[in-house]
Amino acid sequence: MTSQEALFNYNLRLGDTSLILAQRLSEWTGHGPFLEEDLALTNIALDIFGRGKALLEYAAKTEGKGRTEDDLAFFRNDREYFNALITEQPNGDYAKTIVRQALIDCFDLAFYSELSKSKDETLAGIAAKSIKEITYHKRHSFSWVNRFGNGTEESFNRLQNGLNEIWPYAGELFEMNEVDALLIKEGIAVDLSMLKANWEKEISQLLAKANLVAPEGTYVQTGSRKGLHGEHLSYILAEMQSLPRMHPTAKW
Amino acid sequence: MTSQEALFNYNLRLGDTSLILAQRLSEWTGHGPFLEEDLALTNIALDIFGRGKALLEYAAKTEGKGRTEDDLAFFRNDREYFNALITEQPNGDYAKTIVRQALIDCFDLAFYSELSKSKDETLAGIAAKSIKEITYHKRHSFSWVNRFGNGTEESFNRLQNGLNEIWPYAGELFEMNEVDALLIKEGIAVDLSMLKANWEKEISQLLAKANLVAPEGTYVQTGSRKGLHGEHLSYILAEMQSLPRMHPTAKW
Repeated sequence: MTSQEALFNYNLRLGDTSLILAQRLSEWTGHGPFLEEDLALTNIALDIFGRGKALLEYAAKTEGKGRTEDDLAFFRNDREYFNALITEQPNGDYAKTIVRQALIDCFDLAFYSELSKSKDETLAGIAAKSIKEITYHKRHSFSWVNRFGNGTEESFNRLQNGLNEIWPYAGELFEMNEVDALLIKEGIAVDLSMLKANWEKEISQLLAKANLVAPEGTYVQTGSRKGLHGEHLSYILAEMQSLPRMHPTAKW
Repeated sequence: MTSQEALFNYNLRLGDTSLILAQRLSEWTGHGPFLEEDLALTNIALDIFGRGKALLEYAAKTEGKGRTEDDLAFFRNDREYFNALITEQPNGDYAKTIVRQALIDCFDLAFYSELSKSKDETLAGIAAKSIKEITYHKRHSFSWVNRFGNGTEESFNRLQNGLNEIWPYAGELFEMNEVDALLIKEGIAVDLSMLKANWEKEISQLLAKANLVAPEGTYVQTGSRKGLHGEHLSYILAEMQSLPRMHPTAKW
């Protein structure tokens, strides 16, 4: 694997993770529990979508084969997607969406803060822009976890159930392979093992505040680093890609 | 009809029109023809959604019966909605969505520019904030109409078909009733008859540039000022209201 191939794959991993998460979050647009939240979540989805677009643009440039970010988004199948599995999981109810978001925001804030120091200037620039956004996202999701956890019995139960469902997919966020190894050596990628202890500390504090218990001894679901996904991703892609694939040459 | 009742209805008309249009536009989120447009249209939907929320907040305050903007959005049925009919029409293909948006943007920019001079300070404030947003929206939709109209045969045909479908709903934007009469006298509402000539001029210039022909002698569809809508609105409301109505007392 060349440095270029590694960087292309790394960009896809980050870009796909943002794109698919944004896609999931935007399913709430117009269907939120109340107008204020609808606006907030759509804004968050837009931030993440914008980051995904920037990362896929850079992926396309890195690949250097004339493909655009649209080609990458719309004309790859699920085996060529590298989004983290947690992002493609169904939204479930609002409590599950929020707890998934809290787990991801906590990871992302630490991750993009580190990535902003990358020797790769494009990645560092995208990361620097993201820090402010993710700081707001994290405040939003953390405060809702707190509210649900200390709200009614129903809101607490929904939150705990959501956590139980999503928890097995959180560990994969820290998985590394030869792509990471190569790019860490070059000062480009973030060493994910450095982020784990703090993430675990922050999340266990959050869960404690919200009276939640993390499922114990759960098997960690992995696969996305190799392009292996559940069927959920196929449905997301089918919906996202149908229009562009129907008119591949249309001059819109 | 008291001034207060008229203002409540006027606020509902404006708020509902924004809310339903935003709802329609947000259907494109994640389904746009390419990423850039997806981002742009979602941003536009968010602007309009934010305006709708502000207007419904003000409607709730004007009514003074303890209802919130969420109560107004989620617990009124279609006969109690006053959105302009053009906003509830199905999106159709992207060309139809864009031409609908151009007709509305052209109206809205003139309308909110006038409303920003209203003697009602809340309406004037919301309007002033909207002018900058709508200026961008109009530039966006007008440039796409131009591009589609001068693009391929297919894009031109789609645009002309979209225009034919949406045209009968444009005239209603200028319809006035006793609500307008009362509030114009008080310096609060905009006299819509003052906006029509310029709208017609701008739109006919746009259509000419894009080689489009406005359908002739079309019957103007009306009804929304009295809460009369097509079945499309029922479907939009069913989707938008299902979650809040399922858990009306849930403390989310």
